[in-house]
Amino acid sequence: MTSPASSPDPSRAETIRIRAGFELHFELSQPTPMLFVVEPTDRPGQRILASRKRIVPDLPLAQHSSYLDPHGNTVWRLLAPAGRLEVSHDLLVEVPAHKDPVLPDLPKALVQDLPSPMLHYLLPSRYVDSDLLSAEAWQLFGHIQGGWAQAQAVCDHLQTRLQYGAGSTASTSAREAYQSGYAVCRDFAHAGVAFCRALNLPARYVCGYLPDIGVQPDYRPMDFHAWFEVWLDGAWRTFDARHNVPRVGRILIATGRDASDVAFNTAFGGSVLAHMKVWGDQTLDTELPPLAAGYPHTPTPEGLRLSAEWLQRD
Amino acid sequence: MTSPASSPDPSRAETIRIRAGFELHFELSQPTPMLFVVEPTDRPGQRILASRKRIVPDLPLAQHSSYLDPHGNTVWRLLAPAGRLEVSHDLLVEVPAHKDPVLPDLPKALVQDLPSPMLHYLLPSRYVDSDLLSAEAWQLFGHIQGGWAQAQAVCDHLQTRLQYGAGSTASTSAREAYQSGYAVCRDFAHAGVAFCRALNLPARYVCGYLPDIGVQPDYRPMDFHAWFEVWLDGAWRTFDARHNVPRVGRILIATGRDASDVAFNTAFGGSVLAHMKVWGDQTLDTELPPLAAGYPHTPTPEGLRLSAEWLQRD
Amino acid sequence: MTSPASSPDPSRAETIRIRAGFELHFELSQPTPMLFVVEPTDRPGQRILASRKRIVPDLPLAQHSSYLDPHGNTVWRLLAPAGRLEVSHDLLVEVPAHKDPVLPDLPKALVQDLPSPMLHYLLPSRYVDSDLLSAEAWQLFGHIQGGWAQAQAVCDHLQTRLQYGAGSTASTSAREAYQSGYAVCRDFAHAGVAFCRALNLPARYVCGYLPDIGVQPDYRPMDFHAWFEVWLDGAWRTFDARHNVPRVGRILIATGRDASDVAFNTAFGGSVLAHMKVWGDQTLDTELPPLAAGYPHTPTPEGLRLSAEWLQRD
Amino acid sequence: MTSPASSPDPSRAETIRIRAGFELHFELSQPTPMLFVVEPTDRPGQRILASRKRIVPDLPLAQHSSYLDPHGNTVWRLLAPAGRLEVSHDLLVEVPAHKDPVLPDLPKALVQDLPSPMLHYLLPSRYVDSDLLSAEAWQLFGHIQGGWAQAQAVCDHLQTRLQYGAGSTASTSAREAYQSGYAVCRDFAHAGVAFCRALNLPARYVCGYLPDIGVQPDYRPMDFHAWFEVWLDGAWRTFDARHNVPRVGRILIATGRDASDVAFNTAFGGSVLAHMKVWGDQTLDTELPPLAAGYPHTPTPEGLRLSAEWLQRD
Repeated sequence: MTSPASSPDPSRAETIRIRAGFELHFELSQPTPMLFVVEPTDRPGQRILASRKRIVPDLPLAQHSSYLDPHGNTVWRLLAPAGRLEVSHDLLVEVPAHKDPVLPDLPKALVQDLPSPMLHYLLPSRYVDSDLLSAEAWQLFGHIQGGWAQAQAVCDHLQTRLQYGAGSTASTSAREAYQSGYAVCRDFAHAGVAFCRALNLPARYVCGYLPDIGVQPDYRPMDFHAWFEVWLDGAWRTFDARHNVPRVGRILIATGRDASDVAFNTAFGGSVLAHMKVWGDQTLDTELPPLAAGYPHTPTPEGLRLSAEWLQRD
Repeated sequence: MTSPASSPDPSRAETIRIRAGFELHFELSQPTPMLFVVEPTDRPGQRILASRKRIVPDLPLAQHSSYLDPHGNTVWRLLAPAGRLEVSHDLLVEVPAHKDPVLPDLPKALVQDLPSPMLHYLLPSRYVDSDLLSAEAWQLFGHIQGGWAQAQAVCDHLQTRLQYGAGSTASTSAREAYQSGYAVCRDFAHAGVAFCRALNLPARYVCGYLPDIGVQPDYRPMDFHAWFEVWLDGAWRTFDARHNVPRVGRILIATGRDASDVAFNTAFGGSVLAHMKVWGDQTLDTELPPLAAGYPHTPTPEGLRLSAEWLQRD
Repeated sequence: MTSPASSPDPSRAETIRIRAGFELHFELSQPTPMLFVVEPTDRPGQRILASRKRIVPDLPLAQHSSYLDPHGNTVWRLLAPAGRLEVSHDLLVEVPAHKDPVLPDLPKALVQDLPSPMLHYLLPSRYVDSDLLSAEAWQLFGHIQGGWAQAQAVCDHLQTRLQYGAGSTASTSAREAYQSGYAVCRDFAHAGVAFCRALNLPARYVCGYLPDIGVQPDYRPMDFHAWFEVWLDGAWRTFDARHNVPRVGRILIATGRDASDVAFNTAFGGSVLAHMKVWGDQTLDTELPPLAAGYPHTPTPEGLRLSAEWLQRD
Repeated sequence: MTSPASSPDPSRAETIRIRAGFELHFELSQPTPMLFVVEPTDRPGQRILASRKRIVPDLPLAQHSSYLDPHGNTVWRLLAPAGRLEVSHDLLVEVPAHKDPVLPDLPKALVQDLPSPMLHYLLPSRYVDSDLLSAEAWQLFGHIQGGWAQAQAVCDHLQTRLQYGAGSTASTSAREAYQSGYAVCRDFAHAGVAFCRALNLPARYVCGYLPDIGVQPDYRPMDFHAWFEVWLDGAWRTFDARHNVPRVGRILIATGRDASDVAFNTAFGGSVLAHMKVWGDQTLDTELPPLAAGYPHTPTPEGLRLSAEWLQRD
């Protein structure tokens, strides 16, 4: 919370607005307790201007609650009846107009100088078997000076070493994905976190929305994204081993030690995900359009136009 | 989170929807840090279906953040520039269709059997000078058996003893209001909390919205309301010494030891509240109307009709 | 916190006292940040009557602090200089005279009825790859009714299936140990936790002291012990797949999702554990003997006598 | 946790050891729930080397527990039987050999730059009616530049304005004590906190031990002491309006918004404090002497000698 930068350029807005959300349909063979980690909240760098949530069928109040998990994430908790369950969320969010900061000179803190709550983020976790990648981490990156430089070298290495593509399952650990040579965004993030922790850089897993702004639109259906953060010089810093270029428009949903903490959906019982739609587009709207207008399906012309504009501006 | 009641009467909905919100205008003579404790979140008994927040002028992201206070309340934190500041919030909330539960047989726990986190709610606080009302509390209510009965006797006594009306200021304590004989909802709540704590009943102050549903509409402008909760038989129970009748439609914004924890607005510097509008009406809508439709001013015909219906039903 | 049982038998004490502690010597080739999770605190069922801590060489205050980790465990944090480091702790602790409770009728809660903080203990973690043991868990134990019965069946199965003995390393997961057929106490605990989580029983890993009281003394050097707890009927319940018999005298040091949370020592850098002595003996003393009297090496005659007495009594 | 200062003077120890503790006897006419906030724990600047706790009569485990309050203080919770209750605590604590730091140039943060958790320490509380002292605070101290300077000016003013002496009761607020002109350490601390909060300096109340080291011994019986802390330049800084000179040897027991959070004893029922002894002396011992040696009554010759030495050194 600091004073506004002196003499801002009035011709460039400091923030943009993004409409983001999802629609999920499940088929449940029996009443099923379910958790959803999908709700972004106000954070430094993002402001929720409007939101709406819709669950069909309508559940009694006692079968739908929210709680904060140990990482401060909002978790929705449902007892869904057998049959079809539809869950949707629609948001208008304000985020910075600038790209992820690049701060290559940030130093690496000595372990003895880290705040105590950060030590937890040096330990291995379910999908981050950093203890098993320690030797390789030091061999590959141990000679690099500087905290940012080391984390960036990890991302650069993963970009070269890992090919984007399925192969992993919900049980794949960082080391397993790394050794397989194939990775989706979740695996890129796990591997990045694992190498950083092995190097004594506190690191955590992040899930959220990453719209196609300022980049060539990806015509594959949008999905939730995963990236990671490294604690450097007193703050969490964004790294994205999957894309490995600074981006604009990230909306952070949740953070945790790894994907086991922040799976967007956990079902205690058999569930089939029958339909999934995720959206995230820059918008000039100042409020959510009425539901009757439907959810966006693909990047809207407006969104594309704005993205193109943004490309030119940058 | 329990199974739905067996064989519910399909002709009676279990929940109703309420549109609630506020619009506040301030005049600030200089840049002013401000806190707002105004945002309800999902809780047992309330579900936020839609929300929108609007602040004019638009603030840089760094001058507007949110945090959770030690009581788990969401606090908005602004650095407002000099001049006019407009803050508004508009919500669609689902709450139970039934009135505040009345459970006259709930027993009183011995202090030694209270969970440790509840002991904090036996201590005096800024506006709850329960230590100074202890002798009177035991004299008036010490003979009453039962936890609910004792808390209800406190409310009944305050109804008789205190006349609704201004007189208190932002500095008035429970004892001062009690001795003056005049009280607004905040004073009723402080006095109720004070007598309960003096009697070793853990009690906390609550602020929120209380729409006119199922009661004669109050044509005075609506305001935020304050009531209190007493920890009885393992849960917080609602008491409202101001109205002292069970009500439907409460939306809980925040809880704390007293009003100093949950003032809806705290300004660090001079500020003038130039305009204040608060609304809360039952609605059949399933989403918030567009902003262009404006904020509700007085109970809408729809709201009144629903209230009347509700009255007949009850 | 309840009233004492009516008419206790004055001939049987309700509690016993245990002297427990450890002495660790490390050889460090360079200044090394270290964490120790070794300090028991007051909990339901244990009361620290006296304690002393000794670190040689004496460290400046700024190089030795304590903090609470996310599970509420006390963690000592050192910056140890190069050379030899000696850390010792000596405690006098009061614990119940009775054995671990056996409550075979405790039911199993439905997931939807668990308190939200317990849901975290259903997720897999670094060494508890419960997701990979799910199929086997339901095949082996899915037919068993009752929460206690299911957890006990897990312990009985592990007793039969696993042979006590080394083979595991600091990286071995529950599934790996289970498949190897060999386990030390840490692996028994991880496997117990993993099967319980797979069965939707919230379970956590526990480390502590377990003296030889009421059992044949084990003449191998004493070590820290690991067991686990299952959340049943509103409280954490003790299970010990390694011994699988109720015991008296457990002193709980720390709890966590698995051993990665509560390793008794974590060194950020190379360290050699040159010497380790752990003790835990029943005692009639009411205070710690002077340091000059030394630390106990093997079960003292007094301890053995008391243990024997206890055996007769039981 | 930083590296030791380079080239320390080996002739001056960086730390000293203090033996501190208390002995309290109560007479209870009936079984009484009691809270004690008396247990110091490891903190930056203090290290508990040894401790012992003694309660007579011996209570069943279920009638004596500990918990952490919302401020992180350890609270002992007893259900004491009718009759005499003896509670004692004896500690060996390592603290810095230097006096309270004096840092007159520390600046005052703008409210908008304070970390969110600090905002809570700007609000009034039970005995800190800072809202009622606001006008006087700004009139007296508003012109002073600098955070440390402002807090120090508050202390200097209170030294002049308030005379040490009884007059206050357990219900006396900061303003009441201030207006009376008489104050004990608790009132000095409340008044200091109140003026600082009114000036937008986050401030909290502290209770602890303050031995007579480096000062003329006070031959009145020792008691617990109260002082306060102000958040300046990223850390809590010690101020003591009662003594208003830097001291060596403070052992911090607990912190809170005011004395209602950290009363050393709270009894829920009638209790008479029949005997109270508090000690705190510098010592060369490296462990607590046996209980048979008794608790120290008055400053020991050893303690006096060390104090005298310290005086010369300083």
